Amino acid sequence: MPRLIALYHPPDDTDAFDSHYRDVHMPIVARYPNLRGVSLSKPAGVAGRPAPFHLMAEMAFDSEADLDEALASEPGAESARDLRNFAGAGVTMFIAPDEANA
Amino acid sequence: MPRLIALYHPPDDTDAFDSHYRDVHMPIVARYPNLRGVSLSKPAGVAGRPAPFHLMAEMAFDSEADLDEALASEPGAESARDLRNFAGAGVTMFIAPDEANA
Repeated sequence: MPRLIALYHPPDDTDAFDSHYRDVHMPIVARYPNLRGVSLSKPAGVAGRPAPFHLMAEMAFDSEADLDEALASEPGAESARDLRNFAGAGVTMFIAPDEANA
Repeated sequence: MPRLIALYHPPDDTDAFDSHYRDVHMPIVARYPNLRGVSLSKPAGVAGRPAPFHLMAEMAFDSEADLDEALASEPGAESARDLRNFAGAGVTMFIAPDEANA
């Protein structure tokens, strides 16, 4: 399934980030049209290095058209606006198209 | 399943990168012990922005212990050494532990 992936950079205040993500941001994301699932992971570093991201959110859709529709929707715009309220450390976003496994 | 995730930054020469990844790097990764699957995606940018990465490789394992064993193995070390041969633009790596879907 095509995924919208958001990689949140380590925040200064992880407790405030986590609370805002859970209580405010996630409920907005949950209203994305066509959303098939959200997977959240807390990245860990490799070989003793610090994790480059605090949180990875993967939002799955049936098609890239559905994903585009979600981004263009009212909840899509609202979630983008909400980033300024908790993601000041930065967020790296991209779309992972559906591809065959190697 | 826990995943080792490698995000390759956009290379200067994408053809050379892709050839090296397919013909040299992937065969090394394929020798990781306990590897359950590799998924490759070519990231696309969001909202007209350029993609922040050229390639995402997701390597799945049954457990974090299996993942750690793969990283510490001879193919794990060889793949780390091989990065200098094609990933000069940079690679961001992290471990995504197994977590419940939201």
